[in-house]
Amino acid sequence: MASCVFCKIAARQLPAHFVLDEPDQLAFLDSRPIFHGHVLVLPRRHVETFTDLPAPEVGGLFEAAQRVARAVEKGLAADGTFVAINNKVSQSVPHLHVHVVPRRWKDGLRGFFWPRTTYASEADAEKVAAAIRASL
Amino acid sequence: MASCVFCKIAARQLPAHFVLDEPDQLAFLDSRPIFHGHVLVLPRRHVETFTDLPAPEVGGLFEAAQRVARAVEKGLAADGTFVAINNKVSQSVPHLHVHVVPRRWKDGLRGFFWPRTTYASEADAEKVAAAIRASL
Repeated sequence: MASCVFCKIAARQLPAHFVLDEPDQLAFLDSRPIFHGHVLVLPRRHVETFTDLPAPEVGGLFEAAQRVARAVEKGLAADGTFVAINNKVSQSVPHLHVHVVPRRWKDGLRGFFWPRTTYASEADAEKVAAAIRASL
Repeated sequence: MASCVFCKIAARQLPAHFVLDEPDQLAFLDSRPIFHGHVLVLPRRHVETFTDLPAPEVGGLFEAAQRVARAVEKGLAADGTFVAINNKVSQSVPHLHVHVVPRRWKDGLRGFFWPRTTYASEADAEKVAAAIRASL
């Protein structure tokens, strides 16, 4: 897509620090990383969100993300990874991308990520589950 | 695995609000959700992290996550989703699970999620990319 920053990077019209460059997927460093070594893995073709990716292409994208996660752990001696996709809300570039972020014990992110709530009752929770099931 | 909470849920030895229950994958509500409708999608068999999942099983897990993401958006009239995996660090249960969280415009999570840093120089960034590439 002509106006898409990630399509321009894919076409090598904008620079990036590439990690992977294959026919269907590419991966490069996020220029504003959570931690150094934060990589974005994306389908070459322009698809906006995870749910827009045709199901037959899901495996290829996440196998690439898995290879990158392994390489991030090994190459940067990380203790683990954070793998995430923001779809629509909080999505800065409207071209599907999987964040792969190296994590380390005591890296300070722990309390940051996961605000939690509860359900008022089991019946309340079951109502929500039923609404999701009805849309599967 | 006998001591694993998610294996016990998979075997119906512990209760959960199920969204999906298939031979290879299951999905149920997180009991301490970021927002109501926060679902965990997991492989039935015990695998600890994303990188431990055999590559041929990656597609099936994420196709299930994609179906759940669509259902969460549709069933709960969400504006988007947050899809994430914590591997080892910040991972509360050591059985691989994909979080699918409904997101809404102005739901308050924006500033919460993404602390950012920079690279001191392009050379510094390239050195990090090279270390990852060398481990692919």
